[in-house]
Amino acid sequence: MNLEVLTLVITTGGLGPTRDDMTKTVVADLFAKPLVLDERLLAGLEARFHKLGRPMPALNRTQAEVPEGALVLPNPRGTAPGLWVEDARGRVVVLLPGVPREMRGLLVEEVLPRLVARQGGERRVVLSRTVRTTGTPESSLAERVGPIEPEIAPLTLAYLPSVDGVDLRVTAWTLEQRDAETRLARVVERLRASVGEHGYGEDGADLAAVVLDALRRGRHRLGVAESCTGGMIAERVTNIPGASDTFIGGVVAYADVVKTAALKVPIETLEAHGAVSEETVRAMAEGAQRLFSADCTIAVTGIAGPAGGMPEKPVGTVWLAARVHTATRAVKRVFPGDRDEIRRRAAQAGLDLLRRLLAES
Amino acid sequence: MNLEVLTLVITTGGLGPTRDDMTKTVVADLFAKPLVLDERLLAGLEARFHKLGRPMPALNRTQAEVPEGALVLPNPRGTAPGLWVEDARGRVVVLLPGVPREMRGLLVEEVLPRLVARQGGERRVVLSRTVRTTGTPESSLAERVGPIEPEIAPLTLAYLPSVDGVDLRVTAWTLEQRDAETRLARVVERLRASVGEHGYGEDGADLAAVVLDALRRGRHRLGVAESCTGGMIAERVTNIPGASDTFIGGVVAYADVVKTAALKVPIETLEAHGAVSEETVRAMAEGAQRLFSADCTIAVTGIAGPAGGMPEKPVGTVWLAARVHTATRAVKRVFPGDRDEIRRRAAQAGLDLLRRLLAES
Repeated sequence: MNLEVLTLVITTGGLGPTRDDMTKTVVADLFAKPLVLDERLLAGLEARFHKLGRPMPALNRTQAEVPEGALVLPNPRGTAPGLWVEDARGRVVVLLPGVPREMRGLLVEEVLPRLVARQGGERRVVLSRTVRTTGTPESSLAERVGPIEPEIAPLTLAYLPSVDGVDLRVTAWTLEQRDAETRLARVVERLRASVGEHGYGEDGADLAAVVLDALRRGRHRLGVAESCTGGMIAERVTNIPGASDTFIGGVVAYADVVKTAALKVPIETLEAHGAVSEETVRAMAEGAQRLFSADCTIAVTGIAGPAGGMPEKPVGTVWLAARVHTATRAVKRVFPGDRDEIRRRAAQAGLDLLRRLLAES
Repeated sequence: MNLEVLTLVITTGGLGPTRDDMTKTVVADLFAKPLVLDERLLAGLEARFHKLGRPMPALNRTQAEVPEGALVLPNPRGTAPGLWVEDARGRVVVLLPGVPREMRGLLVEEVLPRLVARQGGERRVVLSRTVRTTGTPESSLAERVGPIEPEIAPLTLAYLPSVDGVDLRVTAWTLEQRDAETRLARVVERLRASVGEHGYGEDGADLAAVVLDALRRGRHRLGVAESCTGGMIAERVTNIPGASDTFIGGVVAYADVVKTAALKVPIETLEAHGAVSEETVRAMAEGAQRLFSADCTIAVTGIAGPAGGMPEKPVGTVWLAARVHTATRAVKRVFPGDRDEIRRRAAQAGLDLLRRLLAES
């Protein structure tokens, strides 16, 4: 990259219509350029409001003003476009909106391609690939994967734990692009082999999408019954576009009366074993199967806290079940963390239980 | 603050048990101190794993090592404690874990109090308060609130839009603490009056918690019926500790067969008006009331996209209903954004519809 290109500042935010949105004014000032109305931008803004069925407030007009001579980077995701302001000496300020989705879109589609185009000669890149795992702790994973680490140099390996599991991220630093891609693909293959059944996907893979794909391959349809996760599994599954061909529905059986009335969990089961028990979670998985005429189900019941813990069932105790046709697998887990973390770990574990059961059947 | 105290570095992350966790090693090196095993930390780690019912992997032992002489900041939320390393010249490096919840807890409970204690004399603070609004766009809000802005100086006002609505954040800069608090309280009161029914809470208030409180005050119990939001409303409500005294349950009626079988939406209604219609959403709200014996319900049905849009019902079209006893209010909204954003806006709007209906009844 040339030194001139490096005199580049990217700002995010402050492009909205209100008084505290001052980025454009400040940058126009720095470049000693006036703000001028861009008629095409104004027409686009008006069309956008028209489509949403509301009149455009007068304030939004300021969003169509740009520093004179600025290049407008169209933002199909929102009202504030990106702006590329440059002076005769090649000094550049790029203004991007602060909404993460809009900022990311403009960066990837408009800004980075322009920077790459300016860069001459051989391109060296920093590239990463990720192997996603769940259901096994970071340190056990390291015992499996550790021996590979010295052998993959100059690539490096990072362990990234979260409530969803542990991601293994391999990075190639400043190699030539094709070389980096080839080496990364080889390492990813080795990592997948070492993590075995704990690996569920690569890079941005979402476990809910992985499970939906597996269900689709087997022409299965899914129903869920959730107590402590309160709808989180259904929410994650339906977050995947096209889920409706595979996901039938869910019951959030929060009060026990819903477990008995909608899911037909026998009252005797609840009384003898409690709502957080193997017997109850199995009955929930079967009840959801009947209610939704689904061949596959996931059921979850547990104690997310902060209240409700007991000596023999502390906060974090969760019973999970997955059912495929007539086979049910139930497991008990005790998750660490606060209420939100316990629920998120439980949702991920519920999806993972079905993934493993489907892989074996 | 003394100049000495300003030679302070706070690091986050890299305190885990794997090879890529190098922060402690690097900092111990900088201070020319060896890493030593802290027996109390080790005992705590072992107890933590014991409680979770798993043996502690050998790798985790390294988490009990600290730079000699370091002050251990106990971390009740995870396995890696914070560390306060200081040399004879008062140069300080504070090592915090990278997990956001753990980092935040240690910063607030251990690090900031120590910094405040070192600071002598008069304390000037930067303090903010927030008024949360939803259901009205930023620019319409600015037309209501704008006139106040010049009058609140030296306090400043920021508009923070998100899918949940628009937050109005007032900030007092470097005033004396009590003065800042008094001025902020006065401005918050004025803002709440100007935003009127669009304001639902202050500071960190969650609309789901606000709705639960309103339901509790009226001794109501809640059930929900969700199609396009796929469990998100139930998930948000059950994320609030203690929701079980008020929330009975939910149905994720994703396939139409669930709308007819579980919620008793008449097939004729679906055929005549479609799944995304006022008639269907009203029938869903009534069906949830019967199914859960709930006096209050929320129902949502819409097109989250990316597929499924039609000329007269484009992607983003959502019908929402709230029901209190025998009164139902239904509204149609067309939300902008991608699938995730449309769903999140719809969940917030569903909760808000019930909030407004409860406030009026």
